[in-house]
Amino acid sequence: MLDRTASAHRLHGISCQSWRLAVETNNIKDWKTVPASCEDYVGHYMLGDRYRKDSKVVADEAIGYAKGVELGGDGKDAWVFDVDETILSNLPYYAQHGFGTTPYNASLFDAWVDLGKAPALPESLRLYKKLIALGVKVVFLTGRDEMRRKVTVLNLKRAGYLTWDKLILRGEDQKGQSAVVYKSGERKKLVEGGYRIIGNIGDQWSDILGSPEGDRTFKLPDPMYYIA
Amino acid sequence: MLDRTASAHRLHGISCQSWRLAVETNNIKDWKTVPASCEDYVGHYMLGDRYRKDSKVVADEAIGYAKGVELGGDGKDAWVFDVDETILSNLPYYAQHGFGTTPYNASLFDAWVDLGKAPALPESLRLYKKLIALGVKVVFLTGRDEMRRKVTVLNLKRAGYLTWDKLILRGEDQKGQSAVVYKSGERKKLVEGGYRIIGNIGDQWSDILGSPEGDRTFKLPDPMYYIA
Repeated sequence: MLDRTASAHRLHGISCQSWRLAVETNNIKDWKTVPASCEDYVGHYMLGDRYRKDSKVVADEAIGYAKGVELGGDGKDAWVFDVDETILSNLPYYAQHGFGTTPYNASLFDAWVDLGKAPALPESLRLYKKLIALGVKVVFLTGRDEMRRKVTVLNLKRAGYLTWDKLILRGEDQKGQSAVVYKSGERKKLVEGGYRIIGNIGDQWSDILGSPEGDRTFKLPDPMYYIA
Repeated sequence: MLDRTASAHRLHGISCQSWRLAVETNNIKDWKTVPASCEDYVGHYMLGDRYRKDSKVVADEAIGYAKGVELGGDGKDAWVFDVDETILSNLPYYAQHGFGTTPYNASLFDAWVDLGKAPALPESLRLYKKLIALGVKVVFLTGRDEMRRKVTVLNLKRAGYLTWDKLILRGEDQKGQSAVVYKSGERKKLVEGGYRIIGNIGDQWSDILGSPEGDRTFKLPDPMYYIA
């Protein structure tokens, strides 16, 4: 059932620390699962205080940057947030499924999503609130399917994200697209619609690569999965 | 003499580990010095085995990638290497100058460079040798001034880099350019000259950002300095 060979054989002699750094810096790409030998390491990272601390630095930098941006005053300055592992945390799910060491299981994961109970990532919620207070428009851009709009809206509000300008989900015709193609395409539409994307934040490199990226991009940690 | 306030005040409540991750992922940009409170942390990282191990993962990924590239057979497949902290190590210098906690001192650093005694980064030398064996053309692209060509050639050969296709140094007319502008401009010339840049590796984000980046880019660790 579990095909760990592809990623496991690549870990020969590498520590889980070095693996995580290489993943976060996008040196290791297209990995399917967390190496089996790193389950404890990733679990401790995610459940301990390092994940929160590493996220805090990113939020601090983003807030510092946003405060310094001179806004247009026309309501067209926007910030793009990814959803999963960026503003909503699926850690309760992954903690019960090996922290990314087992292959992605769409039906199990969808069942979790459909509960609408993913908690907020606290540092991202802080950034979100700050941006709202500054008058920046918020756009949520997620790889979730359009059919999950209702539960996503419910979950976002439960988690404390009470307002936004746009919530963009993947349409029927975008299902075959890679995340980079889909998301950069949607950002292009935003820019064509007059928005200035002053910031863009996600946990995946596919959230922040691909023109137009946004004036500045931020990469949150995520050692549990990779989306191309 | 030492103005550490700019970077030091930003570290409030952040661990040096989180600072380093944020630096390596390009979330923290344009920093002038390593926070004073992180001198020991960075020193231990650089002199211990973590730096080597983190670099090994990058070299392994790069070699694995390069082996899978179908070369054109026309001698136009090229790999771009940055020089300082990518193929040559200035760690002997930085170890005597606070591991990046003190502001950049051009005259002291140039005097070190002029010795021509920077050692090779062993993992990068391994990648270099593998690429040569595969038949990939090697291009060294450095922010060093053209006037340091002679000592740079001497140093490269001493360190074990015995052959290359091009060694590009910063010309007189490029002195005011940012590293991104200068380096992406030189890569553009390479592409216009018929080269296919299959890979590009550096320790700075300014080595690997800016079109044409190369088919795939690799980021080596460097928690000691930032070049815009």
